Amino acid sequence: MKKILILGGDGYLGWPTAMHLAKKNYKIHLIDNFSKRSIENENSITPLYQIETMKNRVNIWNSLNKKNKRLTFSFGDLLNHRFIYEELKKFKPDHIIHYAEQPSAPYSMAGRSQAVFTQNNNIIGSLNLLFGIKKICPKAHLLKLGTMGVYGTPNIDIEEGFINIKHKGRKDKMHFPMKPQSYYHCSKAADSVNLYYACRVWKLRATDLNQGVVYGIDTPETSLNKKLSTSFHYDHIFGTVLNRFMVQAALNLPLLIYGSGNQTRTFLNINDTLQCVELAIKNPAKQGEYKVRNQFTEVFNIKQLAMLIQKASALIDIKTKINFIKNPREEMSSHYYKPSNKSFIKIGLKAKKINKDFIIENIKKIIKSKKNVDKKIIDPKIKWNH
Amino acid sequence: MKKILILGGDGYLGWPTAMHLAKKNYKIHLIDNFSKRSIENENSITPLYQIETMKNRVNIWNSLNKKNKRLTFSFGDLLNHRFIYEELKKFKPDHIIHYAEQPSAPYSMAGRSQAVFTQNNNIIGSLNLLFGIKKICPKAHLLKLGTMGVYGTPNIDIEEGFINIKHKGRKDKMHFPMKPQSYYHCSKAADSVNLYYACRVWKLRATDLNQGVVYGIDTPETSLNKKLSTSFHYDHIFGTVLNRFMVQAALNLPLLIYGSGNQTRTFLNINDTLQCVELAIKNPAKQGEYKVRNQFTEVFNIKQLAMLIQKASALIDIKTKINFIKNPREEMSSHYYKPSNKSFIKIGLKAKKINKDFIIENIKKIIKSKKNVDKKIIDPKIKWNH
Repeated sequence: MKKILILGGDGYLGWPTAMHLAKKNYKIHLIDNFSKRSIENENSITPLYQIETMKNRVNIWNSLNKKNKRLTFSFGDLLNHRFIYEELKKFKPDHIIHYAEQPSAPYSMAGRSQAVFTQNNNIIGSLNLLFGIKKICPKAHLLKLGTMGVYGTPNIDIEEGFINIKHKGRKDKMHFPMKPQSYYHCSKAADSVNLYYACRVWKLRATDLNQGVVYGIDTPETSLNKKLSTSFHYDHIFGTVLNRFMVQAALNLPLLIYGSGNQTRTFLNINDTLQCVELAIKNPAKQGEYKVRNQFTEVFNIKQLAMLIQKASALIDIKTKINFIKNPREEMSSHYYKPSNKSFIKIGLKAKKINKDFIIENIKKIIKSKKNVDKKIIDPKIKWNH
Repeated sequence: MKKILILGGDGYLGWPTAMHLAKKNYKIHLIDNFSKRSIENENSITPLYQIETMKNRVNIWNSLNKKNKRLTFSFGDLLNHRFIYEELKKFKPDHIIHYAEQPSAPYSMAGRSQAVFTQNNNIIGSLNLLFGIKKICPKAHLLKLGTMGVYGTPNIDIEEGFINIKHKGRKDKMHFPMKPQSYYHCSKAADSVNLYYACRVWKLRATDLNQGVVYGIDTPETSLNKKLSTSFHYDHIFGTVLNRFMVQAALNLPLLIYGSGNQTRTFLNINDTLQCVELAIKNPAKQGEYKVRNQFTEVFNIKQLAMLIQKASALIDIKTKINFIKNPREEMSSHYYKPSNKSFIKIGLKAKKINKDFIIENIKKIIKSKKNVDKKIIDPKIKWNH
């Protein structure tokens, strides 16, 4: 049985990934430092569904499953290299899924200490991990969650990690130029540089999953028991646009668009994150290879998304307004955008495209927990250039 | 009188830059945390000439100069943001020259703690500086020392920071793809990403000076008084190739080439560093601009350099052998290499090209201090992939 270590196992994606892969006959061990819960406290935000302590979630999952599908968990921080070295020694993973980065762009733009926390956690934490893998399990396959945001919005098609460049009569296959749009995204660019380097210099093997914006509340496993829910966020720190729009629709609030709404981004269903990660495990990078896969299923601009939500909610008699505010972020208000996701299509990704039924089902679910929503935490409070 | 803050004012380049610019009627304030002296202690290495304490060097310089050419100094660390904020508030610089990064690639490859020290110091220290500039002096022009090493050795011509890419019928001017070859070089790639971003999001103004390998012992100012020497290194941590070759020749040791010697790199005389930095100050980036200048004057491969030294030393009756050892670094043993330095040529760089006279003069100077050389610290001890 292959062993998978999941770093950031308490998160929106880490927890559902753990349960999904445990069912697929992998032995799973989770690690988290609960820094996301700390940031929630710091900013007085809570996820829509109350999340059990890690110990309780693991116990509930284990009580529902046979021995070979059970999860184990260790509390600890990648910034403590002794901790992660010890975990690698004890668990001897075949694959390591690295979700343990501070994932909020707005948080990283709130001020110096948040930017420094983000870059220190993400860059130095990941560097400790690379040294640990080199020393202890150099054959383990590292899957690091990257972001489509490292590419920015270039005026050319976005390839997957690399691009063939012709220049003055010569050519080379080069790392796709990065133009990240927050200190969080800069941290992801930096750790991709380190990761690519570790694969070259030490012949480690890694897949960088440049992921789009994830949406959705449930996976088959989170639906088994309320206490197995994942941390669904709709707030200005961790709430991503589609999840936030569904909450606004459920509460009869206007869908708030930042800027023109012509900003175009990549999206995927939380269940497709699980599918992609599983496909990337089954099709790992070779020893010494740094593989980049763009992990998304669809491309929308924000206005299109808002209109999708508006139309779907109308079918259940919710009249949703769309409001525009000055964009608190610094980003291009209109731009070319054509990213590739061929590498996942090639290894069998079957996308769950967004549709009315999905939106209606999610809005109905949110309506049931309407009383949990804190309206004060939805609108943006962090300006990119304050 | 324009005010220039020099970060890393105790270093091989920081100190001569300070004296050079003080003479040119700039008001100069220096900052250093002496981390280079700590790394010297940690590794039992010393520069060829004993370096005075910072207080003594500053006092000697000031005793030789009129009031308006005098230097001031503060001890402190960029990792302490309160310190750098306070310095920016007090001094109100027009230009900030940022030499305060851990500059040794071998050091960064010695192990985890050295790699982490390097990336933390360089990335987080610089990030604190960016936040300080934004908050306190957003119109100050930041000159950050980068390295030609961020480009690696691509199979296409190396432009200056940006490249026009045509791809599938479309085009964009993009950040030149980076392929750094040590964790030190990775840290410089990361802080360039942050710096470029700060210029976009906050409209800071910065020049990234992607510098080649610097060589040479003296500048007009260091020659004024023995106690004004700069920290000339020939050791395996801070010694760069040409300086090391001259020391090996002076001691009748073989010139040691790592690997094939076909590795091609860019070089410049320490006096040209001063010239370039001064030119970059006189031709600053505009507000909101991130300007990249490649800072070098010549391109050689390592074998060519060794032969230059060999020929020059023969003229003063030193027979120098050239030895080859297995390369302790991981780098391409032969490759295309054609970098541009047009932007400095355009604003008036007059290069001091290396020649026999220069080499002979430097070797003779080193011979006078022969007894200071510690032969044990010359050969490489750090392997890139150990």
